Amino acid sequence: MAENKIPYKIYLDENEIPSKWYNLRADMKNKPAPLLNPGTGQPLTAEEMSGIFCEELVKQELDDTTPFIDIPQEIQDFYKMYRPSPLVRAYCLEAALDTPAKIYYKFEGNNTSGSHKLNSAIAQAYYAKKQGLKGVTTETGAGQWGTALSMACAYLGLDLKVFMVKVSYEQKPFRREVMRTYGAEVTPSPSMTTEVGKKILAEHPGTTGSLGCAISEAVEVAVTNPGYRYVLGSVLNQVLLHQSVIGLETKTALDKYGIEPDIIIGCAGGGSNLGGLIAPFMGEKLRGEKDYRIIAVEPASCPSFTRGKYAYDFCDTGMICPLAKMYTLGSGFIPSANHAGGLRFHGMSTTLSQLYHDGYMEATSVEQTSVFEAAQQFARVEGILPAPESSHAIRVAIDEALKCKETGEEKTIVFGLTGTGYFDMVAYQKFNDGEMTDYIPTDEDLAKGLNSLPKVPGQD
Amino acid sequence: MAENKIPYKIYLDENEIPSKWYNLRADMKNKPAPLLNPGTGQPLTAEEMSGIFCEELVKQELDDTTPFIDIPQEIQDFYKMYRPSPLVRAYCLEAALDTPAKIYYKFEGNNTSGSHKLNSAIAQAYYAKKQGLKGVTTETGAGQWGTALSMACAYLGLDLKVFMVKVSYEQKPFRREVMRTYGAEVTPSPSMTTEVGKKILAEHPGTTGSLGCAISEAVEVAVTNPGYRYVLGSVLNQVLLHQSVIGLETKTALDKYGIEPDIIIGCAGGGSNLGGLIAPFMGEKLRGEKDYRIIAVEPASCPSFTRGKYAYDFCDTGMICPLAKMYTLGSGFIPSANHAGGLRFHGMSTTLSQLYHDGYMEATSVEQTSVFEAAQQFARVEGILPAPESSHAIRVAIDEALKCKETGEEKTIVFGLTGTGYFDMVAYQKFNDGEMTDYIPTDEDLAKGLNSLPKVPGQD
Repeated sequence: MAENKIPYKIYLDENEIPSKWYNLRADMKNKPAPLLNPGTGQPLTAEEMSGIFCEELVKQELDDTTPFIDIPQEIQDFYKMYRPSPLVRAYCLEAALDTPAKIYYKFEGNNTSGSHKLNSAIAQAYYAKKQGLKGVTTETGAGQWGTALSMACAYLGLDLKVFMVKVSYEQKPFRREVMRTYGAEVTPSPSMTTEVGKKILAEHPGTTGSLGCAISEAVEVAVTNPGYRYVLGSVLNQVLLHQSVIGLETKTALDKYGIEPDIIIGCAGGGSNLGGLIAPFMGEKLRGEKDYRIIAVEPASCPSFTRGKYAYDFCDTGMICPLAKMYTLGSGFIPSANHAGGLRFHGMSTTLSQLYHDGYMEATSVEQTSVFEAAQQFARVEGILPAPESSHAIRVAIDEALKCKETGEEKTIVFGLTGTGYFDMVAYQKFNDGEMTDYIPTDEDLAKGLNSLPKVPGQD
Repeated sequence: MAENKIPYKIYLDENEIPSKWYNLRADMKNKPAPLLNPGTGQPLTAEEMSGIFCEELVKQELDDTTPFIDIPQEIQDFYKMYRPSPLVRAYCLEAALDTPAKIYYKFEGNNTSGSHKLNSAIAQAYYAKKQGLKGVTTETGAGQWGTALSMACAYLGLDLKVFMVKVSYEQKPFRREVMRTYGAEVTPSPSMTTEVGKKILAEHPGTTGSLGCAISEAVEVAVTNPGYRYVLGSVLNQVLLHQSVIGLETKTALDKYGIEPDIIIGCAGGGSNLGGLIAPFMGEKLRGEKDYRIIAVEPASCPSFTRGKYAYDFCDTGMICPLAKMYTLGSGFIPSANHAGGLRFHGMSTTLSQLYHDGYMEATSVEQTSVFEAAQQFARVEGILPAPESSHAIRVAIDEALKCKETGEEKTIVFGLTGTGYFDMVAYQKFNDGEMTDYIPTDEDLAKGLNSLPKVPGQD
């Protein structure tokens, strides 16, 4: 291995951290469908949005024509604390698989939030601070987004209220403590502290929660408390915009060594990592300059792309949020409690949904025991204990590399290693003890959510 | 901050990872005292040692004349998975403290073991594998060493049995799961699985354990099981040798930018991080080429340097290990259960003990609530949640930087940030809840351990 010219880790210089975000929508012929006001069925205006989101972020949310947007210097400085992140050549994994494939992963876990979520957290917190707000509210599932936002808010001196999906709150008590160490207030969701939480608990007593519930609660608190706005860690266009730093750095690192990827793989919950990782590559594909196989990987227990419907739906369970046109399982869908990793959102980024609908990317779903098998294999040879979410991408990267072993093809595979699994040890313990099981919803299970999609003019 | 020429993180190139370890002892006029056979009171021979340790490691343990020792290619390749580690300029901490001091830290936490321990773990596992052993045994306190060794053993396909200090085993259940994910067998110590464990439990029922107890158990299992040897994560000369990669990289990074440190600070439990960090700098000091203030920081609750005795003592509580001349609190000393962070060893590296005895370095002790205050402050501005151990060094670095603020001096401070605190959230929770207390042993508490030092010819 030693004689290879490509290092194990490709680190860019500090001045190669992007100074502009790349706005993928600018290169899309079919733009993602606009958010709708659920009351009127009309596209949400900037004014309507600004009651929920910060003003500058509303602009970014609506801007589908500007290809590059300057990253404010303060955010660039913050990025320097933990970026550039390494693009790693998985020499040891390749050797273990005995594959002719060349495997690379962009590792976003080397910061205390443990994931890529910090890239958007600092941006959203920055604009909230700039607007003179007192604080922000949010939801968190696996906990990475809440941790990332806690870090960003602590850095800027902003107040933060986090609603954490109850099952994660219970499985990951230490995530809560990290957030508290950074000064955040953390409430398990659904809770009795909001009207929508009380309503959900009355209808579904004993529910372990979902991102959709937590979003409803966080939005309610934001709109009923002066000086607060709501911020979201995935799904939105603005989040994909901020996360484009992942893909931009990846592309710069690959270009430096003249590496052309054949396959790009990312896990997909709401789409923040996948959308960020693929952004510049998808841009080339949209402009007809290059072609890549792009694969979204989702859990078989929450299969929005592969078994959902492309339709307007609520982003939240409490149905107080705008409607988004996306691949969705229905806002009432709550993944089985046996589901261990994040990626539990019922919907998907509108941008990625449009791209998938238009045939620019593939999607596949994987079961969690096979995901943890991949995680363990990866951990043992690559020395990084991956987050369950990231391990969905590892699973498919390994599968693709094994296909290359069969065919003898030397494909170049790039995947996003979004984060570390240090706070997921309850799930790992279940796996280590052989007690992990798989859950695939039946068509009947899914029908409940899919049959209750909201009525929108022009939609079945 | 943006116009600074020195980047936030100085990353070396892969080919700047050291290819040789630096053996500090070669430059010491007063060599560290040899280990003694407790039965005969005579220096331990290589043959006697090889029943406990791997052969190549015995050579390294005894070699106090060769200044540089080649790092085998396989270990260099493993280092490339997570090294070089960044030397970080703490711009944000400097701003928060409003100090003219320039603060740097060498961050060793960006690998799954969460600390610098992996640097020696892979070396020791490599030599065990090369010797054709079936496996190794070890102790672990805070858990970083056990995790690091689990990773190294998984990578090389070696069996591993870990004895984990009971208080850590209980406070850090997820550490155990990480080790299990890497295939290690983990037993809380003291246990009923060894003779020495049974003896300790009979004498001290309900003890929460200590590194000294865990070492005794691990050694017993190694010497009574064919094909096994014992490996240790700190204290030994060989460990300091392997950890010299920390200091060598730090020096290369500083030299690249023409930075001359004034003060070098490291936390000290058994001395592995401190000894590694300071190695090349101490070498310059010993050779009369340069002068640096070098500060060892230890917990007030386990103050080997500052309140211990420089004397021959057992390295373990069960008194089955060789005798080492070191600053010690007595092998019977067990830190109060209220003590949260690692650094709980009763003794200290013989090399560092000799250097401290000869006046080449200072030592200071700090109380844990002030350590966690420093940890929280650091986390909020630098974005890394530090291990409690590392936070001892942060405390003193901040204190020195605040002195510079008073005097106006622009001193350059370098400290070792040994790892991350992701598995220390029970301690952080105590701190967050305002329930953390300090404990300083009284002279009477210490007298118990110090009055029971073994009789060695020529020693009081």
